[in-house]
Formats: sequence, structure tokens, C-alpha cells
Amino acid sequence: MGNIFFAHSGGVTTTVNATLSGVISGYLDHRSTFSNLYIGENGIVGALTEQLIDISQYSPQEIQSIYSTPGAAFGSCRYKLKDPKLQSREFERILEVFKRHDIRYFIYNGGNDSQDTTLKLSNYFKSHDLDIKCFGIPKTIDNDLYGTDNSPGFGSAAKYLITSIMEAGVDLRSMSSTSTKVFILETMGRHTGWLAASTGLADAPFNPDIILMPESAFNQSLFLKQVQNAVNDRGYCIISTAEGIQLTEGERHSTGLVDAFGHQQLGGVASQIANLIQTELKLKTHYAVVDYLQRSARHLASKTDLEQAYVLGQKAIQACVENQLCDSMFAIKRVSESPYQWEVEHVPLSVVANQEKIVPDHFISKCGMNITQACREYLQPLIEGEAWLTYESGRPKYMALEKRMVSKKSPAYEI
Amino acid sequence: MGNIFFAHSGGVTTTVNATLSGVISGYLDHRSTFSNLYIGENGIVGALTEQLIDISQYSPQEIQSIYSTPGAAFGSCRYKLKDPKLQSREFERILEVFKRHDIRYFIYNGGNDSQDTTLKLSNYFKSHDLDIKCFGIPKTIDNDLYGTDNSPGFGSAAKYLITSIMEAGVDLRSMSSTSTKVFILETMGRHTGWLAASTGLADAPFNPDIILMPESAFNQSLFLKQVQNAVNDRGYCIISTAEGIQLTEGERHSTGLVDAFGHQQLGGVASQIANLIQTELKLKTHYAVVDYLQRSARHLASKTDLEQAYVLGQKAIQACVENQLCDSMFAIKRVSESPYQWEVEHVPLSVVANQEKIVPDHFISKCGMNITQACREYLQPLIEGEAWLTYESGRPKYMALEKRMVSKKSPAYEI
Repeated sequence: MGNIFFAHSGGVTTTVNATLSGVISGYLDHRSTFSNLYIGENGIVGALTEQLIDISQYSPQEIQSIYSTPGAAFGSCRYKLKDPKLQSREFERILEVFKRHDIRYFIYNGGNDSQDTTLKLSNYFKSHDLDIKCFGIPKTIDNDLYGTDNSPGFGSAAKYLITSIMEAGVDLRSMSSTSTKVFILETMGRHTGWLAASTGLADAPFNPDIILMPESAFNQSLFLKQVQNAVNDRGYCIISTAEGIQLTEGERHSTGLVDAFGHQQLGGVASQIANLIQTELKLKTHYAVVDYLQRSARHLASKTDLEQAYVLGQKAIQACVENQLCDSMFAIKRVSESPYQWEVEHVPLSVVANQEKIVPDHFISKCGMNITQACREYLQPLIEGEAWLTYESGRPKYMALEKRMVSKKSPAYEI
Repeated sequence: MGNIFFAHSGGVTTTVNATLSGVISGYLDHRSTFSNLYIGENGIVGALTEQLIDISQYSPQEIQSIYSTPGAAFGSCRYKLKDPKLQSREFERILEVFKRHDIRYFIYNGGNDSQDTTLKLSNYFKSHDLDIKCFGIPKTIDNDLYGTDNSPGFGSAAKYLITSIMEAGVDLRSMSSTSTKVFILETMGRHTGWLAASTGLADAPFNPDIILMPESAFNQSLFLKQVQNAVNDRGYCIISTAEGIQLTEGERHSTGLVDAFGHQQLGGVASQIANLIQTELKLKTHYAVVDYLQRSARHLASKTDLEQAYVLGQKAIQACVENQLCDSMFAIKRVSESPYQWEVEHVPLSVVANQEKIVPDHFISKCGMNITQACREYLQPLIEGEAWLTYESGRPKYMALEKRMVSKKSPAYEI
């Protein structure tokens, strides 16, 4: 028998709860195979602090509410485990907690950083003669994960951004004769332009004239020329920009803060671009920075994204049941584009760990400031389908579940 | 017979097209009473430039698409007519265009500034022995219009902001143990706090701990104390702030630009507050500035708001038919709160012109940084009901109608 441990890692997405739902559903389908399913409160931190959510303590209604709520029902974290070769205290602690709770399966839902952590944990368990099977499930709104056709979470963020830029575009088109001429939408995406690129799916005439991605060097004079051209041609200019672009050589726009993985906290580029346009072209410019809204807009989630996130969770449990495919990440494989068909494949953790997938050259138009038809064809299926929520009193019904923990069995531990 | 002229004025809302739909529907119901319905392209500017959209040139399907698209199908403008006592050229031109096109009814959809314009036009027509009946229909997301219980456009913006802050709140709650502790949502609202106040309807534990409104003086030390208290109590702090608050005495956050009505272009306060919190409390803070998205999120419109906006359009046509209630603005009157019941009333333009309705004292909690139960009861019915859109290929189907004009009959005119 033995128990399963599952945790999210890193920034949440609209669909990490769908993955959790898939894991829970897979577990409930195989209750005779496992004793319990534990979820780390706030991700891997819960393994260190021995705060393990006991799924058997939740009603079917509570379980069901997880799928319809964004964020992570039991929390995630920005916390990178230290390399055990340099400092083994954390790995020792996890090993101790897992032993005491008879954990035999470890499923980690995160980005390529987290797949690296999973691999390190797996190797550590093996070197300590502990039989804990380790599996990875991808997630990120940034779509920069290597080894999967797309990342769960990306399609929903894209759908939100596309809808948002279209709505702002409708507004701009209504007002531009006497008021704002340029609108800028700043997207997340870290060092890649996938999220900004996705806005290229917006329908004309509400589509971006310019898409700025870090993969393409910023050319200020060409950029300003294109802004002016768009305003001359159709009366207004719609721009989407990735947070990670560099306006001046060698400099990303950063708030100066660094996260637990050593990544800079990016952002603020839209206001810089707005200033540039207002100064150089004297065009009234507005901008929106939607920040966390793009990774939590469950009211506008992509049905395709939800389904993929859910199925990956189920597949990980299936692998636990069959005791195979250890040290793999479950990934989305595109089988055909039209009609869109996908299946789950498995990729060795060693292949995906710490990689980054950028927007490829053939997805970026020659001018460097828009996307190609090939990119549109890649993106289109990922935003398909709507998943309506229940509304009560005019608001979506989002649940905050109580955290019901299993009793502690280990000594106290300070992080 | 004679023709009707209708125009929007000022910033669009999610539901100005619903008002236009109500006007068109009312007109189509009374085709025997009027010759034609003309819409000013880009608002009153269309009257000056004689760019009059001819509604008879559109198919029922095209007419229907207006209701489901945000923005103004035929444009609005930020253009304030000059006082004819100071410079009469514009009023003379409108009089000429209206005479040549046999306009006998003028319906203006705007804020309190625009009701003033309508009144001035009405007086001007009378003093020139021209029988043109004038009517006003309110609209603004800011809800600061005097003479109406609420402003069409506000309920939908509020519903969008409430959903957004809840979703960001879910995200924050998932991550706050190791990452961001404070999230700030900046709302529009000009010099009033109605939009920020509306976020107080968000469900706990995703509700704002602090709501900053211009009606309540900003107290920095109390504010920082409340932020820290919220983080201590529940691990995170959610803040909504109106764009128009003054962080330091006598200074609003402005981009330095001024619109056609002489209003400052506000904004940027969220980043200032984020800096303040990060500097003083060392708490990781994120913020979102949703800008135009809050006034164009048709995918999340309030059904109540849409209905009210539509009915006001119909009522204005009814008044044209009955040749009464001239020089009135049609307004929403709250007949009962529970159950919510409303009806249309008419208010003299002279009463509403150039007024501003601020959030009253009894809607603001004692600490000045939240809303009262009375405010919640006022706000609640305005966001009720959903109005689902048709999606195609994963995107809402928004239409950009061709602009089909009536032939010009007047000499050219330079604005």
C-alpha cells in the first residue's frame, strides 16, 4: 500500500487545481492500491514542516469545488530546495518525514526548476535505499517548459489576455478619434514571449499591431515608426509587450527584487514604453498591467487547458499504480494540428530539468514585432473551449477549503 | 415625422452599446412616427463633421451584434462643445447640420458634463426658434452622476473588478507563505471612490482588507499599520485603490496630461503604494492596473446593468414619441432594495448638469479604509446576473460594424 505525496511548486496558474483534481480523482479510483493521498501545504514547504493535507478528510462536494477555483487549494510556494551536495539538511528532513508517513510516491507539479528538484530527490532517495517513486507534472503560464508541446496554465492565461486585448481594442477604436491613440498590454512570461505572442490570436480590428517579445531585440526607431504607421492607417495602435523585453541593451525592467529561485521580479515595461511613445510621438497612450489576474482568471479558463491539466494529474497516479515511468515528467504531445489531437507522453526528468523553451524564430514575423501563421496555428487549439462557472450573487463561487492535516509524527523543524 | 439624432459622449462603458440598442429598438418599434435614426460618428463630432450613421442601412443581425460588443459601435469622443456665449461657431454648425437633415430630436448619452452640453444646445435651439427636443441618458463607469441611483456602466465595471480582486486574492492566498504578501488593484473612478468601493463585495477570504477612496483622507501611518495587521492576521493583505486618491496632501497622481474637458489624466497610484509598502514594511507587493479593461469587459457584464442601459435607451425614444419630458435626463430610481426593484424616472437637465456624486459618509467605514453594510446593500443588486456571450474559436465574438453614412448636405467644416 503506502501513501502518495503531491505538491505544487512555484507560481500558481488557473489550472493547477485541475491537476490536483486529476490526482485526487486518480487516487479515488485506486483506493485499494494506496493508503492515503497527502498534499503538501504550501508545496514542498509542507513536506519540511510536516504539514500534510489529508485528502480523506474532504467531502465529494469539497473535492469538486477545487476544480472550479483558481490558485492552489492547499497552497504552493516559491521555495527551492538546496542542493544536497552543498547542504543536505532539507533532503534529510524530507526523507525522515516521508519515512514516518510511509510515503512511497512523490508527485511534483512545477516548472523545469522543479523537475530538477524532483530528480535530485529521486536520486537522494535511491542513494539512501528508500523506494520512493518520483514523477513530475508540468505547469506554468509562461509556456517556457521544455519537453512538452505546451504547459498547462498557458492556454487559460492566453485566453484571458486575448479577450482582454480585444476588449481594450474595442474601447480604443471607439475613442481614438479624439482621445487615446495607443494602448499597451503588459503580459508576464519572464524571459520568453509566449504570453505576449498569444495576443496575436485576437480578432481584427482589435488585434495587436505590435507584439514585443524578449526573443527579438528591441529596435526603438523601427518600433516608433510602426506605432505611427498603425495610428496613421487605422487611427490607433494596439501593443502587447512581454514583461521581460529589454528596451535598452543589456537591461531588463526589474523591480530590483529577486525570488527564491534567484529570478528577478520583472515588470514595469509598459509604463516605460508609454512614456517613450508620449515623448517621441506625442500620442496619448494608456497601458494595463494585469499581473496575477492573467494566471488566476478561472472565469475565462480554456477548457482544453483544464482538460490537459486534469488528465496529467490522473496519468501520474496511473504511473504510481503501474509502478513504472519513474523519474519521468508527464507531458502533452501534439498528435495532429487540424483537427487538434493530443496525448500524454512521458519524458525523463533528466532531459527537462532546468531547460527553457523560447519562442522559435519561425513563430516570429520578419520585422520581429508580430507572430507568424505557424505560431497562430500552434496557439489556436490551446485556448479553445469555455468552462463556465457557477455564479452566486453576481460573483463566481470560489471556495477556500479548510486545511485538514494528518497528525505530526516527526520532531519540530525550523525552515 | 423628422429624424432622431443620438450620440455618445466621453469614455465608453461596457453597456453604452446596450443603450444604443435600446434606442434602435425603440426607434424600430415606432418607424411610422420618425423618418430616420442617425447616430453621430464618434459622438458629437459626427454632428459637426456631418458624419451621420444611417441605422436603416444595417441588417437585424448587425443591429443585434451591437448589444454583445463593448465600446461604442459607432464611436464616442472626448470633445466638449464650447460655450456658445463665448464662441458660437460649433453651435451654429450643429444647428445648420440638424436643419439640413431635419433632426427634431437630440438624445445625448454621457456624464454630467454632457447633460450640461445638452441643456445648452436645447436653449440654443429654442433661442433660434428651432423645435428640437433634447434628452439625456446617463452613462459612466465612475457612478459619480447626480440625479440617478446608479450610472449605467458602473455595475459591469464593478462586477469585473470584484471578480478580478477575488481571483488575485485566491492567487495571493496560495502563494503568500513564501512569496507575495500584498496585492493592490488600482481602479478608475476619477475623483470618486465608487469603483474601488465596489470591490468590497468580494467574498472572504478573497476580499480587500483595505479600500482607498478619495472621499477619505489618506493616513499613511494608519494605512501601513492595517497592512501589517492583515499580513499578521491572515498571511496576506488585499488592497483596492481608486486612481484619484491623494497620498500626499494636495496632490493627486497624474500623468500630467489633461483631457478635452480639462480633467487630468489620473493613474499610477498603485505603483506608488507598492513602493511605500516595500520600503516601509519590507513586504513583497504586486499590483495590477486594469485601465480600460474595467470599462470594456463585456464577457463579464452585469445583466442588471445591461438591462438598465437598454431600457433607458428605449425610454428616451418613448419620450420622443410622446413629445414630452424634454430637457430631462432619464435616470434609474431604486424603488426597493430587497427585493431589488427599479424604475425609470426623469430629472431636469438643469438639476444634474455639472454635478458630481461622491461616496457618502455612511458608506465608508469609521477607519476610512473600507465600506459599510449600507454600501454593500446599495452595490449588491447592481452586479447581479450574467450575460453570456457567444465564443468562436475560444474568443468572444465582437463585431466591428462598417460605418454607413447618410449623404452630406452641408458645406465642409474644420473642427
